Amino acid sequence: MRSISSDCADEARNIKVVVSYDGTDYFGFQYQPKVPTVEGELRKALSKVLKENAPLWGAGRTDAGVHALGQVINFRTHCAVPVEKLCIALNRHLPPSVRATGADEVSSDFNARHSALSRHYRYDIVNAPVCDAITGRFAWHVKSPLNVTVMGDAARKLIGVHDFTSFSSASEDEGCMIRRVDEIGIREAGNHIFVDVWANAFLRSMVRKIVGTLFEAGIGRRTPEEVAAMLKAADRKCTDKLAPANGLCLWEVRYSEKDV
Amino acid sequence: MRSISSDCADEARNIKVVVSYDGTDYFGFQYQPKVPTVEGELRKALSKVLKENAPLWGAGRTDAGVHALGQVINFRTHCAVPVEKLCIALNRHLPPSVRATGADEVSSDFNARHSALSRHYRYDIVNAPVCDAITGRFAWHVKSPLNVTVMGDAARKLIGVHDFTSFSSASEDEGCMIRRVDEIGIREAGNHIFVDVWANAFLRSMVRKIVGTLFEAGIGRRTPEEVAAMLKAADRKCTDKLAPANGLCLWEVRYSEKDV
Repeated sequence: MRSISSDCADEARNIKVVVSYDGTDYFGFQYQPKVPTVEGELRKALSKVLKENAPLWGAGRTDAGVHALGQVINFRTHCAVPVEKLCIALNRHLPPSVRATGADEVSSDFNARHSALSRHYRYDIVNAPVCDAITGRFAWHVKSPLNVTVMGDAARKLIGVHDFTSFSSASEDEGCMIRRVDEIGIREAGNHIFVDVWANAFLRSMVRKIVGTLFEAGIGRRTPEEVAAMLKAADRKCTDKLAPANGLCLWEVRYSEKDV
Repeated sequence: MRSISSDCADEARNIKVVVSYDGTDYFGFQYQPKVPTVEGELRKALSKVLKENAPLWGAGRTDAGVHALGQVINFRTHCAVPVEKLCIALNRHLPPSVRATGADEVSSDFNARHSALSRHYRYDIVNAPVCDAITGRFAWHVKSPLNVTVMGDAARKLIGVHDFTSFSSASEDEGCMIRRVDEIGIREAGNHIFVDVWANAFLRSMVRKIVGTLFEAGIGRRTPEEVAAMLKAADRKCTDKLAPANGLCLWEVRYSEKDV
């Protein structure tokens, strides 16, 4: 991976940036003209730094209120700003709720969305009678005690290559509903329960539907066998519990060695 | 400590509540009629739960943008709502950025402000080239490497009973400027530097002026001896660096055994 020289670049260079955000006050990642979006903030900051309007691609179209520590974007630019100075320059023009945390020049065929091999989302549940205001900004506060063993048994039913229609949102574009869930990790730490999901890609609201359903298993409303049957039915009317957006964070996006 | 019975109470009971808040969007703790304040939110929620307007006292008047995990308030009420249900009832009427996390009935002479034996504030510095948006909401991002040993040497100059005029804000009410700083702990964890300050009480902006000055020591702009001289001068023109509000959190307030 080369640094961009500070000489003027003749050819457009392809730049990959890792972005984190507190999604609370945004209508999701994807640009919408009349409401605040993360992509909207990135476009504004990029146009100020690059002095050109660069179309950008994001690895994950996170919903309104969902956070990210490892969102990845890419864009092409003729601007010769050195990559090692790009984050500082972008952060000067971004609001504190959106931060660029790493930048690299990548090969011309790299696309943040299409080159991604897998995505990792983390969902944070606080399972306790009370939850403070700071933790609660980034977690779902569940007062009823959750059975983590049953949640784990239910989660294992979802691992593998499946039609995840039952775990998609009604606003999902029609298209292939098959995804490969590589792993679902459920871990208790103090009064937190972290649900980590790794998949090649996700349908809209898929992690929140999965976590909502695991919550139902955890409080005894559904058995792991019922969760397996819900998956098999491939019918989004099977699931009704959507975990709130604020507990979810796009943790990391993986690419092949050449793109890292 | 008794529970409030659910029968109607003849006498006003004195209730202590532990409160946490994300102070980002508030003009500080203390009530101001035209802007959002933490006390304003608490007053509104209390009047809905208690069906009466109860004056309230807070242990610490945190500045605009400062957070709290262990703020303590008290109020007197004739309402017979059981204390064990009070947090749930209050949280139903509070915004997510303010949470009641514990409630108890206390003796009639307890006052959250005047009965406090000591206060503990924690300041979080992220000392790294980049800082993500989630961590950065509750921390001061300092890019220049800080010398934690020098910061600790400087901090020790401030421990004890002193006139802290140099570490107060111009808006401080006139009055006694002497405070007792019991301890300043400086601890590195990953790329965080936590500055914990325990004192009987604090002047306005005192922790932020202390942390701002320790930052100056940490980057080599001031020696520990100069920090000692600044304290001795008892002149607020000596200090000019105020650490930003968003890194500060009122962590805990201590009372005597009978009030806990």
